[in-house]
Amino acid sequence: MKIGMVGLGRMGGNMARRLRRGGIEVVAWNRSFEVTEALARETGAQAAASFEQLLAALPAPRVVWLMLPAGQATDEAIERLAALATPGDLIVDGANGYYRDAIRHAKALAARGLEFIDCGVSGGIWGLGNGYCLMFGGEPEAAARVIPYMRVLAPTPDTGWLHCGPVGAGHFTKMIHNGIEYGMMQALAEGFALLEAKSEFGLNLAAIAELWRHGSVVRSWLLDLTAQALAEDQQLADIAPYVPDSGEGRWTALEAVEQGVPTPVMTMALMMRFATQGRNDFPARLLAMMRKGFGGHAVKTGGEK
Amino acid sequence: MKIGMVGLGRMGGNMARRLRRGGIEVVAWNRSFEVTEALARETGAQAAASFEQLLAALPAPRVVWLMLPAGQATDEAIERLAALATPGDLIVDGANGYYRDAIRHAKALAARGLEFIDCGVSGGIWGLGNGYCLMFGGEPEAAARVIPYMRVLAPTPDTGWLHCGPVGAGHFTKMIHNGIEYGMMQALAEGFALLEAKSEFGLNLAAIAELWRHGSVVRSWLLDLTAQALAEDQQLADIAPYVPDSGEGRWTALEAVEQGVPTPVMTMALMMRFATQGRNDFPARLLAMMRKGFGGHAVKTGGEK
Amino acid sequence: MKIGMVGLGRMGGNMARRLRRGGIEVVAWNRSFEVTEALARETGAQAAASFEQLLAALPAPRVVWLMLPAGQATDEAIERLAALATPGDLIVDGANGYYRDAIRHAKALAARGLEFIDCGVSGGIWGLGNGYCLMFGGEPEAAARVIPYMRVLAPTPDTGWLHCGPVGAGHFTKMIHNGIEYGMMQALAEGFALLEAKSEFGLNLAAIAELWRHGSVVRSWLLDLTAQALAEDQQLADIAPYVPDSGEGRWTALEAVEQGVPTPVMTMALMMRFATQGRNDFPARLLAMMRKGFGGHAVKTGGEK
Amino acid sequence: MKIGMVGLGRMGGNMARRLRRGGIEVVAWNRSFEVTEALARETGAQAAASFEQLLAALPAPRVVWLMLPAGQATDEAIERLAALATPGDLIVDGANGYYRDAIRHAKALAARGLEFIDCGVSGGIWGLGNGYCLMFGGEPEAAARVIPYMRVLAPTPDTGWLHCGPVGAGHFTKMIHNGIEYGMMQALAEGFALLEAKSEFGLNLAAIAELWRHGSVVRSWLLDLTAQALAEDQQLADIAPYVPDSGEGRWTALEAVEQGVPTPVMTMALMMRFATQGRNDFPARLLAMMRKGFGGHAVKTGGEK
Repeated sequence: MKIGMVGLGRMGGNMARRLRRGGIEVVAWNRSFEVTEALARETGAQAAASFEQLLAALPAPRVVWLMLPAGQATDEAIERLAALATPGDLIVDGANGYYRDAIRHAKALAARGLEFIDCGVSGGIWGLGNGYCLMFGGEPEAAARVIPYMRVLAPTPDTGWLHCGPVGAGHFTKMIHNGIEYGMMQALAEGFALLEAKSEFGLNLAAIAELWRHGSVVRSWLLDLTAQALAEDQQLADIAPYVPDSGEGRWTALEAVEQGVPTPVMTMALMMRFATQGRNDFPARLLAMMRKGFGGHAVKTGGEK
Repeated sequence: MKIGMVGLGRMGGNMARRLRRGGIEVVAWNRSFEVTEALARETGAQAAASFEQLLAALPAPRVVWLMLPAGQATDEAIERLAALATPGDLIVDGANGYYRDAIRHAKALAARGLEFIDCGVSGGIWGLGNGYCLMFGGEPEAAARVIPYMRVLAPTPDTGWLHCGPVGAGHFTKMIHNGIEYGMMQALAEGFALLEAKSEFGLNLAAIAELWRHGSVVRSWLLDLTAQALAEDQQLADIAPYVPDSGEGRWTALEAVEQGVPTPVMTMALMMRFATQGRNDFPARLLAMMRKGFGGHAVKTGGEK
Repeated sequence: MKIGMVGLGRMGGNMARRLRRGGIEVVAWNRSFEVTEALARETGAQAAASFEQLLAALPAPRVVWLMLPAGQATDEAIERLAALATPGDLIVDGANGYYRDAIRHAKALAARGLEFIDCGVSGGIWGLGNGYCLMFGGEPEAAARVIPYMRVLAPTPDTGWLHCGPVGAGHFTKMIHNGIEYGMMQALAEGFALLEAKSEFGLNLAAIAELWRHGSVVRSWLLDLTAQALAEDQQLADIAPYVPDSGEGRWTALEAVEQGVPTPVMTMALMMRFATQGRNDFPARLLAMMRKGFGGHAVKTGGEK
Repeated sequence: MKIGMVGLGRMGGNMARRLRRGGIEVVAWNRSFEVTEALARETGAQAAASFEQLLAALPAPRVVWLMLPAGQATDEAIERLAALATPGDLIVDGANGYYRDAIRHAKALAARGLEFIDCGVSGGIWGLGNGYCLMFGGEPEAAARVIPYMRVLAPTPDTGWLHCGPVGAGHFTKMIHNGIEYGMMQALAEGFALLEAKSEFGLNLAAIAELWRHGSVVRSWLLDLTAQALAEDQQLADIAPYVPDSGEGRWTALEAVEQGVPTPVMTMALMMRFATQGRNDFPARLLAMMRKGFGGHAVKTGGEK
């Protein structure tokens, strides 16, 4: 078995490593060729300096797995690969891409006789050791072709991967997964904030996080990570109160609105991230002015809190 | 008709003025006697330097209206007045007080033969000219005694005041009023934030606010104030994005939880104010650390955004 | 001045009436010709049985105002009119349409030499008497051509209409207006629900709504309507607890997510409507099962509450 | 080691069993003596028919653990035990009690020379096999006296219990734990609702829940339970969409408001439960009437959806 791996960042690099450890032949490509060479040296993967080299090194019909940033980078790579590929080749998009883009990609590729699988990959930087949780969509025959690789990437050959449904179903399932993740993270963050604020009890947040890992209802991997973070530092005073958000979180919120399903937890978790990004400042300023308007309440000036 | 007015701040001072304009005799007291004297000179009210003087200047059975900050200041004033008053005297608490405190005050005063009215007062600094919206609770006989003053304070003698129910019903009704106010303010602030962020349309926020005042579904006094604020400055760049909250907003949220009634709008409006006060910083820091934990995502340091 | 009015429903019919009262000549069309004839008889408008007749009855360059349901009905009407129109004709879309559709329509029409104005119309069934609040987008010359009609439709000639910006800016501004409306409505509904639930005070909701109309901070047109509804019936026992939502509310929520602006109040107001539509039933069932799973808590069966 | 166990319901009964399996002598009491006798037969615990018998069977200074419903039942039991106990006796309250009640109990007991520990117990019906997660508050000496029992109840002797701080800190920590639980549960429920609604993908919810248990970021005990529930039935058609809430969830929401910490996820999770209990019906009816008021929109009647 031989696969092309395009994109050797935090996710793609480790997935290539895990594939190699599982005895899979890997032809690797990365925007920066130094990274490709380093991975090749480390793992015995074959380094490709171009998409042409990558495809030439793979037996047809080929399987090429993309682990690039969703959006433009992935779009461009798919387009360029499609132009070089031969009918029967199969592209797996493992990015956190929008499921509607997956459907679009599949259509464009099918017109050239190419196959497509959209695969959501969970597990983060721990996936190398633990295995990845893989949820993918595509035609049954295409799915059958990628399952051997899924078995190696997953925590064990039979768990950790699922052919969810037609093209789009993989990225859709991953999108919802991440929406749940946003909600769970926010739930934990709120809880620890209430513990932290209760100064009269002098609570040890790290000890409580560790405690809850054992037998409590909220035990979870996100709690494990929280416990680790708090064990190192429970003041977090040097950490900026700034939380980025990503496409997945936003798409889940859009999906809920389009479906007409109430998702207050997922959506508020996302919006609280927006607030950390300074996007609540304008409404706050306007509220301050309204209060001044009706009640003569003083307003802080200077533009900063 | 003669009434004692205790507390001559933004609200109490203007209410004394409006009572005087309506031909009511007013005996006024303020923590700072200079303020009392100034009001007396301006309005012909009688200045009292102490609660003793205040009570001595009023014919029994007396009516004394408190416009002090809710909580300790009001509690102490009620206690001191109660000690000096004579049976049949009536105290009106016009502060934004908790309705449960009103019930407590009424009980303590009744034990001394004193009457109590809890009155919510809306209208802010505009009440002097426009009249105040007054919602009060108390026994029917006590209510009857204060209605003549309500008629002068209200926008017109027959509108703008309501005997809502027993003691507590006045402050309760005002509390809910303010909860609604929080929600409406936040709705407006969010809407203008979305207009402001849509830079490609180059929208004139002040003009839109003014427009909506005429015939739109969202026309409202809060919109009038918003339009005024935006007419002066629609960048708001010098205003700090900081919004205080008050007892009323919090009590409404507590009431909803205790009643088991879903109030997402009122409660989220309150919590967004908390966020402007820096109370979302700890959870945000923890979220940043969790993201680092599972995905290796970079974390901003320095403790500030 | 002469204008074509397409769609004579609750909004379009009354707008035609108001234009006629203002001395504007109107050529009217409606899907059901009986409605057209009735309006013609009532108002002296000219009845058109087809788009061809409508255009033939208007002097070129024409102005045709559409008041059709947003989406397919409007799309089709624009397409058919475009095929029949002559360069220089101008179409106003007064529906609650998506601003992105307005931009699309304008492009398609411009390719045929036709002009386009997207106009948000607020004021509901009260607009006939009160005048409408009109917010429109388009090229300056196109805007200049429709202002004479706006002056008649608005509450007074100089207020109640605004040329907000380029094409799209009108429907965008109306979309945000409706988002605010959702938030304000929900704030009022929550507040009255808390008053209603406080049975120990025996509050008269109708009287409180009426009271707040006079001098309170929350006075607003939506409160006026609430007071009217409660004056007729404050139990509402025969009303189904079901609240439809519309495109505007959803698009506002999508916009907030796409812009990355926190809008908890607008978005929760929308989602509470989803919940009234039975869209919270599946998550509720799953929560019941989870509670059973960890705590052995009993679950109600039968599928209904 | 010998302990009294008061209340042999789902939690208390299993805790008595686990203590017995760990070699602890247990004197048991339950409101219904039949339950006590059955447990005694099963586990070799000693059955007490009254609090007097219970105390008589324990060596002074005694340790008595209460597992009764929080509130009145616990209050009454503490009062009655206090009247019968002798100085030095220690009461553990293991209910989901309010931490402010714990502080009140401790004070009342201290006045009689009695000790008090408030202990939050997590793990539900699975605790018998898995062990319980125990978080308790109290004076250090009192804590030292109960640790031997904690070691038996916990998953392993050294994990799963924590002396969190002074009296109140145990129930407080458990309260926050449950607040997080509400948020996590709602996040999962929302996610699966979005999967369920996406009919075009024909997703297998049970398979996805099972998948996510392996290597995903959202893996958690609540997901394990969700997977079990969905494996049995993923339509849930026979389950009523009704979710009770409990004191813990409400107290967490109150705490957030009192602390001024934004907790949108925990609080919305609670409020969505309120909505399932029919508590959103009045606001929904009023919204329907407002829509009719301004837009003439039809209203469903009949009082039901």
